[in-house]
Amino acid sequence: MIKAGIVGATGYTGIELIRLLALHPMVEIAAVTSRANDGQKVSKIFPSLRDDQTANLTFQSPHKSALSDCDLVFFATPNGVAMKEAPKLLDAGAKVVDLSADYRIQDIATWEDWYGMSHASPELVKSAVYGLPEMNRSEIQSANLVANPGCYPTAVQLGFLPLLKSDLIEPKSLIADAKSGVSGAGRKESLLTSYCEVNESFKAYAAAGHRHLPEIKQGLQGLTAEPLALTFVPHLVPMLRGIESTLYAITKGELGDVQKLYEDTYQNEPFVDVLPQGILPETRSVKGSNQCRISVIKPRESEHIVISSVIDNLVKGAAGQAIQNMNLMFGFEETTGLEGLALLP
Amino acid sequence: MIKAGIVGATGYTGIELIRLLALHPMVEIAAVTSRANDGQKVSKIFPSLRDDQTANLTFQSPHKSALSDCDLVFFATPNGVAMKEAPKLLDAGAKVVDLSADYRIQDIATWEDWYGMSHASPELVKSAVYGLPEMNRSEIQSANLVANPGCYPTAVQLGFLPLLKSDLIEPKSLIADAKSGVSGAGRKESLLTSYCEVNESFKAYAAAGHRHLPEIKQGLQGLTAEPLALTFVPHLVPMLRGIESTLYAITKGELGDVQKLYEDTYQNEPFVDVLPQGILPETRSVKGSNQCRISVIKPRESEHIVISSVIDNLVKGAAGQAIQNMNLMFGFEETTGLEGLALLP
Amino acid sequence: MIKAGIVGATGYTGIELIRLLALHPMVEIAAVTSRANDGQKVSKIFPSLRDDQTANLTFQSPHKSALSDCDLVFFATPNGVAMKEAPKLLDAGAKVVDLSADYRIQDIATWEDWYGMSHASPELVKSAVYGLPEMNRSEIQSANLVANPGCYPTAVQLGFLPLLKSDLIEPKSLIADAKSGVSGAGRKESLLTSYCEVNESFKAYAAAGHRHLPEIKQGLQGLTAEPLALTFVPHLVPMLRGIESTLYAITKGELGDVQKLYEDTYQNEPFVDVLPQGILPETRSVKGSNQCRISVIKPRESEHIVISSVIDNLVKGAAGQAIQNMNLMFGFEETTGLEGLALLP
Amino acid sequence: MIKAGIVGATGYTGIELIRLLALHPMVEIAAVTSRANDGQKVSKIFPSLRDDQTANLTFQSPHKSALSDCDLVFFATPNGVAMKEAPKLLDAGAKVVDLSADYRIQDIATWEDWYGMSHASPELVKSAVYGLPEMNRSEIQSANLVANPGCYPTAVQLGFLPLLKSDLIEPKSLIADAKSGVSGAGRKESLLTSYCEVNESFKAYAAAGHRHLPEIKQGLQGLTAEPLALTFVPHLVPMLRGIESTLYAITKGELGDVQKLYEDTYQNEPFVDVLPQGILPETRSVKGSNQCRISVIKPRESEHIVISSVIDNLVKGAAGQAIQNMNLMFGFEETTGLEGLALLP
Repeated sequence: MIKAGIVGATGYTGIELIRLLALHPMVEIAAVTSRANDGQKVSKIFPSLRDDQTANLTFQSPHKSALSDCDLVFFATPNGVAMKEAPKLLDAGAKVVDLSADYRIQDIATWEDWYGMSHASPELVKSAVYGLPEMNRSEIQSANLVANPGCYPTAVQLGFLPLLKSDLIEPKSLIADAKSGVSGAGRKESLLTSYCEVNESFKAYAAAGHRHLPEIKQGLQGLTAEPLALTFVPHLVPMLRGIESTLYAITKGELGDVQKLYEDTYQNEPFVDVLPQGILPETRSVKGSNQCRISVIKPRESEHIVISSVIDNLVKGAAGQAIQNMNLMFGFEETTGLEGLALLP
Repeated sequence: MIKAGIVGATGYTGIELIRLLALHPMVEIAAVTSRANDGQKVSKIFPSLRDDQTANLTFQSPHKSALSDCDLVFFATPNGVAMKEAPKLLDAGAKVVDLSADYRIQDIATWEDWYGMSHASPELVKSAVYGLPEMNRSEIQSANLVANPGCYPTAVQLGFLPLLKSDLIEPKSLIADAKSGVSGAGRKESLLTSYCEVNESFKAYAAAGHRHLPEIKQGLQGLTAEPLALTFVPHLVPMLRGIESTLYAITKGELGDVQKLYEDTYQNEPFVDVLPQGILPETRSVKGSNQCRISVIKPRESEHIVISSVIDNLVKGAAGQAIQNMNLMFGFEETTGLEGLALLP
Repeated sequence: MIKAGIVGATGYTGIELIRLLALHPMVEIAAVTSRANDGQKVSKIFPSLRDDQTANLTFQSPHKSALSDCDLVFFATPNGVAMKEAPKLLDAGAKVVDLSADYRIQDIATWEDWYGMSHASPELVKSAVYGLPEMNRSEIQSANLVANPGCYPTAVQLGFLPLLKSDLIEPKSLIADAKSGVSGAGRKESLLTSYCEVNESFKAYAAAGHRHLPEIKQGLQGLTAEPLALTFVPHLVPMLRGIESTLYAITKGELGDVQKLYEDTYQNEPFVDVLPQGILPETRSVKGSNQCRISVIKPRESEHIVISSVIDNLVKGAAGQAIQNMNLMFGFEETTGLEGLALLP
Repeated sequence: MIKAGIVGATGYTGIELIRLLALHPMVEIAAVTSRANDGQKVSKIFPSLRDDQTANLTFQSPHKSALSDCDLVFFATPNGVAMKEAPKLLDAGAKVVDLSADYRIQDIATWEDWYGMSHASPELVKSAVYGLPEMNRSEIQSANLVANPGCYPTAVQLGFLPLLKSDLIEPKSLIADAKSGVSGAGRKESLLTSYCEVNESFKAYAAAGHRHLPEIKQGLQGLTAEPLALTFVPHLVPMLRGIESTLYAITKGELGDVQKLYEDTYQNEPFVDVLPQGILPETRSVKGSNQCRISVIKPRESEHIVISSVIDNLVKGAAGQAIQNMNLMFGFEETTGLEGLALLP
């Protein structure tokens, strides 16, 4: 039984961590912090969390809280917080899983360019492990600081991985046309994500350049020796949860049995599910679950290979993957607390 | 560890039973029946259920299945099936929880009038226990045949119960203005529940008379010696899950502290949550959970007392309550397998 | 051809006025005001309005604008603006249709109690005509200042009118269980109306007392000599547009042919449509249109008469009714510019 | 004033034709056919169409109807109907706009391969004009038989047209990642488009090959002398109306000012709107309107040019474009009856 803390527990990622950890048999939630709600019961602010398991959880300002007694601290904070607060917790002996972007990019200049701020703890970036278990399982197991991947990067990297690793596609031809539910934008006052501005509409956004681009490129470049280029266009879907990413690449010669390649690559992965040929994944098939489901498509009259990859952006794209990483870091069974099936409908 | 079977497992209630039972530590799903999908893996028909826990589940026609070896059989079938099939299973020693309406109404003529068919096993109706634990817990514990309540009846009866029991309202003045998500209509081909006919719209339906009316009246009448009347108008909400029921009644004289009455009545109930005064329940606060959340309202310039009660129609309104009843029937902890918190957003 | 101005044209009601007036053959939009967007083209802020008819419309701060040259000014502003700005426009000879609540309540003390501010032009309230054409057509025709009704009040009053006028129901027994789409909350930054807080959920709100209560009561009280009481509970529906109001009342003795009563009452009304018996109105049947559709229901085993009434809250509940009032005030055909059929789906 | 008939008026395209034609000053709807609803008033089947303009419209079986007296007949039928019925109407002197796919593909073998039936009137295909006014305006003006384009083909062709015509992209590198609201699937009983199977989910479908592929390729091939290849993946969005198509192509050398190219190409087109640089189109900006809005994007760190194009699939993608074609065929102002602005929200 370990003690876990959650910094910034009032966003959708924080709520999701509470929902999942409440049922985790090896974890006690020892601290949940929120400046704005200091002293208030979690169950008062979030009626959906009113239940026996969370009856005693109370938000506290970080400095009053028991964070320093925790074995593990999750940062579910906006970018720029963890890079300031994580160092002292690490010094105090806690492990850290950062769900923000602070430690995801190894090149500091690139990070500062895309995120528009100076990095407060660049010396820690090198030791931070990028928490995509399907790529870095063993490094995660021994890590003290894990940079939990972004939602789009999880869906896109798991989709391209087998093809790139097997050198079957042109690394400069990659396109990721990605679509996300609205919860990806976080829990905040904003006209842009208000119901009447988002519902019954669909659009591309940030098409000229999204912050997840360098993160995806860094991960994919690690899979090939050739220079890689990626065109990444995210879109907003009028739904709460879910990411679908349709991936395109130009193939190098004959492909062989790509379906088998994907099945073989992921056969021992508990959270990557290659669907049978001909079945395309729906985001609802992973709602509330930590699965990533993937299909391989060879379109008629096309020179491209196409992959469709879906995740729940708040689970495999955030809180669930963070718990998967925690399980690895503490030697628990990797699937513990993540056995819940998707909610349908 | 008991063996459970599910008859009619391809509807939303059946899927929800599988989702919840897959995590129940005392239950093995030993049979799932479906004539149409005989021989097919559950995980093939429902990709959302593709996971280790369900990897070996295969639909079978009822006659080929292991139903008769089950300790408990759930009927998640249309009305009219359980009344024919349950008797032989009961004879074979299984217990039965019927999620359809077949055994809910004690007066056979009333049932036949509202459901438009002859009852095939009227002799069993008297021994069937109406499975609302908050009303009939001890009878359920010793029952072999439980009639699982309808979704609207659950929300409405739990809402009115404290007021009627305490004789604080006029029993002839009751109104239930109820609203349900679309999954209440079941999983079937129908223009009426197609996306483009339902989305971005709201309507009353079956206002002249809905089949849940006699069920609700039977339950509420049991709480008062005076004759009772109920006006019940259901509405369709463009959302997947959730029922909200706004209840109106004329009060008898001074009410006293109704908030406290509700809190006292339900203080030991694991699945009824009386919200603090001034907080109104949202259906999303119970999405995927077995909770019923209730608020008491005394409107300004009004002679009515108003109650708002929410449930997830597929959980406390169907599959979750069925498992709660199962837990009672087999002496398990009442909350086992139902600890999951609501999914938000 | 008259010149019309719109004050506060950046909310949903203002956008709807532009959409409808752009096709009105007797109106030129001469001024649209917005402090925040002074000098910007309407078509730049709202791409949905990019079209030839609106190509030259530019937002201006009120003091720079041509409001004083207008024959008619619409106030599509938050409560508390029109009561300060309308007097000088009226003095300058313009007519005014106020879509806010400033001039709706005849009793100043009641208005100040519910709206929490002092009235800035109480002397104008008496001369303001409540703009529900089905109640006050002739007064509207000669009015200079029209108080355009609220959205809920329009649906509820048109629903109860025939029964109350004919003295068929107990005036102290009225209940209005009303449901609105999210656009009723206006266009603004707010966590409460953000997509992820509203979608896939349903709830009652303001159940203890909503500002539309005194407005509805004032209107209905005018239809009966007996004292009237109303319990009014609004609810939020996850959809963009539409209000459905389910109305309950205890009947006085035998009702006679209520269907015929409704058909007769509204037979000459261009914007009230009594549906054939047995057909219940859906909000989508009035999406984008100025119609109010109404059904009369006599529920089985009930002592209540039930009415279901639907409108588009932004059209008959706001901008459309304002234009209907304008047509009456200027002697245009009442339906001019309001001929558009509902958008389905 | 011409007489128009609509064959198959009970689908969403047919309803949309009625909605738009009801306000068209030069058209009288003289016949609406439906076998299933023969003899029933349109306003009874579709309450959204209850209004003065449509009060007398009655569905009739085709053989009883006044189709042969019509100057123009719209086919809003499933594929395979118009090719049998149009010839006799053309012989009788009527003009025909076919909204189905029957006359869209010039190569009969290709059509028969993709649509899985023999063509019943192949001799008419050559004389049929493909009704995309931005490509074929003058041919449409003199046509008797117009093949109205599909919804996806309209969005994709208008998006690629300027780049292909100007020879700025590699014709073999084209990708169209397209997304459609659910009304594109038509009005019919189907589990696949039922609310609970579609809402809160997103998926690719028909990725291996969609019938609109040969139609798009035929149109685009006409713009370039080089052989062209297209990868086309459609997706289903949980919304009623709207198509967004994100188009990718590899550029040929330096592009120059593509924004200006698009603005110049479409400057005289009443229904194609090139948005200012940096503004991406939302589908809601064309809801209910005949506009196609297009943005040009040059993504950071990418070798592709990206275009985003949106239409309302039922208007510019079907009924609106059909009326635009009718206006051209009869010498009416091209925008007549199509002036309505988009409904927002």
